[in-house]
Amino acid sequence: MDRYMKEAIKEAEIGIERRHGGPFGAVVVRDGKIIGRGHNTVVHTHDPTSHGEIVAIREASKAIESFDLSDCELYTTSEPCPMCYSAIHWSRIPVVYYGATKEDAAKIGFDDQLLYDILPRQEKFEKIKLVQIDREECLEVFEKYEEDEERQLY
Amino acid sequence: MDRYMKEAIKEAEIGIERRHGGPFGAVVVRDGKIIGRGHNTVVHTHDPTSHGEIVAIREASKAIESFDLSDCELYTTSEPCPMCYSAIHWSRIPVVYYGATKEDAAKIGFDDQLLYDILPRQEKFEKIKLVQIDREECLEVFEKYEEDEERQLY
Repeated sequence: MDRYMKEAIKEAEIGIERRHGGPFGAVVVRDGKIIGRGHNTVVHTHDPTSHGEIVAIREASKAIESFDLSDCELYTTSEPCPMCYSAIHWSRIPVVYYGATKEDAAKIGFDDQLLYDILPRQEKFEKIKLVQIDREECLEVFEKYEEDEERQLY
Repeated sequence: MDRYMKEAIKEAEIGIERRHGGPFGAVVVRDGKIIGRGHNTVVHTHDPTSHGEIVAIREASKAIESFDLSDCELYTTSEPCPMCYSAIHWSRIPVVYYGATKEDAAKIGFDDQLLYDILPRQEKFEKIKLVQIDREECLEVFEKYEEDEERQLY
């Protein structure tokens, strides 16, 4: 099997052994070297965002002191959920290798289908109530930001 | 204006002043009290996942030592991107108040439309290459997880 996927699986196994959360692991690879690794620690750290991919991406970006991981690849034991897909997008990782599918994950109790159904169309957000308030004041913040000519765009 | 949105805006303003990243702020409220606050720190921390909402959610879950924020509300200066929407879903926050729209954010250079276009259908992931490998080995990890009868489901 793939050597990097083997490492991602090792991470998932650590998570199972320590009961840190769901059975998911991931590694970020750059120039053949693993620069970030992680497993799901939602139960252990109480952080709902600490999926394996997010943990690995955070470690990798810290390691190279850049939010731009466009020269990296991600290996994950299971197809990323929309949160992790989006994090991959923001981190600019161009290639993702995954093992189990989201249907496989759903079978063991980790179903993200709802997110796929609701994300493309806000009006479908029946589960999460969305209320728009104070738009004008928030737009003023954008104006302040744009006034700073030395801001770093990304 | 809304008192909690005012606090979210204060966060966004700190981010602009310190050049931490995009002009976005958020707070998590529980029983009328702010238990988590954050602004975008992508540039400052190099962490591509550190959007205002994620930072606020992480702080809130740490504060109450639970990944379950179902008795909380989130206030954010701008409509959450799919990563943050998904994080809100996983944290079980049922109500989100937002100010500026994603179209407003796109106008100042923060466009997440691509994510909305590609998330519902994997085959549209042209920008991020997805490769499935080693599914069987990854499924074995799921089996190990299911064998642990004391695992905490979430």
